[in-house]
Amino acid sequence: MMVAPGRVIWLEGLPGAGKTTLADALVPRLRRSGRVADRLDGDEIRRNLSSDLGYDREGRLAQARRVAFLAEVLSRNGVFVVVALITPYQASREEARARLGDRLLEVHLACPLEVCEARDPKGMYHRARAGEMRHLTGIDDPFEAPEHPDLTLRTDLLSVEECVGRIERAL
Amino acid sequence: MMVAPGRVIWLEGLPGAGKTTLADALVPRLRRSGRVADRLDGDEIRRNLSSDLGYDREGRLAQARRVAFLAEVLSRNGVFVVVALITPYQASREEARARLGDRLLEVHLACPLEVCEARDPKGMYHRARAGEMRHLTGIDDPFEAPEHPDLTLRTDLLSVEECVGRIERAL
Repeated sequence: MMVAPGRVIWLEGLPGAGKTTLADALVPRLRRSGRVADRLDGDEIRRNLSSDLGYDREGRLAQARRVAFLAEVLSRNGVFVVVALITPYQASREEARARLGDRLLEVHLACPLEVCEARDPKGMYHRARAGEMRHLTGIDDPFEAPEHPDLTLRTDLLSVEECVGRIERAL
Repeated sequence: MMVAPGRVIWLEGLPGAGKTTLADALVPRLRRSGRVADRLDGDEIRRNLSSDLGYDREGRLAQARRVAFLAEVLSRNGVFVVVALITPYQASREEARARLGDRLLEVHLACPLEVCEARDPKGMYHRARAGEMRHLTGIDDPFEAPEHPDLTLRTDLLSVEECVGRIERAL
């Protein structure tokens, strides 16, 4: 059976911007609407595919490249893929676009650093400020402003429900 | 939509044993029988996910681990996955079994080395004998005998069509 390709909903943004929360809400919603859907998150991919990679620029570019490949293989088999990955570099977003074309829906979860840091769901900002970890995006690692996102969601102003609705309408 | 998981048909064997040929025949057949099907072959995965890995034991184990992860993600989304990978080490086969459980159909393409070498589809045996390449499985790299394959196919004695039929009946 040849299936229609799925879409790749690529959630990018600072740690604490709400990528995981939104992916958690989005995947079941996509399934309820009759799609085959799954998520790829940075941590799962690092554990299984990328334990060799670091968090410097090269490591992050390679990680995003692998995620884009995996998303391509899934989406060409009809799966709607929700990617939750910081994706701090514009070069990665452009590579994903080149690979995925119209299948890609690039969604920037825009949330001020202060809000992300106050949320600090994994305690990483705390550790970075205490000098206990390096390469935290937003603190001592850059997050380049997305140049051509398909959608920008102010997750400090919108509810999760509103974000899900906007993504569904954009698909 | 929640889908029934697919199966992972893992073709293992020496270079020249017929993995690519069989995968080429099997994927369209699975699609004609109403399944969503795709293939993962060693070369594509190395290019996209594993350019960091070598062909020594550690590199091959890590490569097989990544392929098993990818096959898991695809099959949990209903895709029938045909893996074409030498998979020379028993440890890799056991890791794939542990990860994939009953979804895995481990198929050993058993073909005598002399036949594989006479076929030499990519010219690798020639280069290895000429001392121009190292780590060729069967020549200067081991292929451990599969201990618990679900199916063993003598690809020097069976036609491609017969091999496809046996795999279909085993699914």
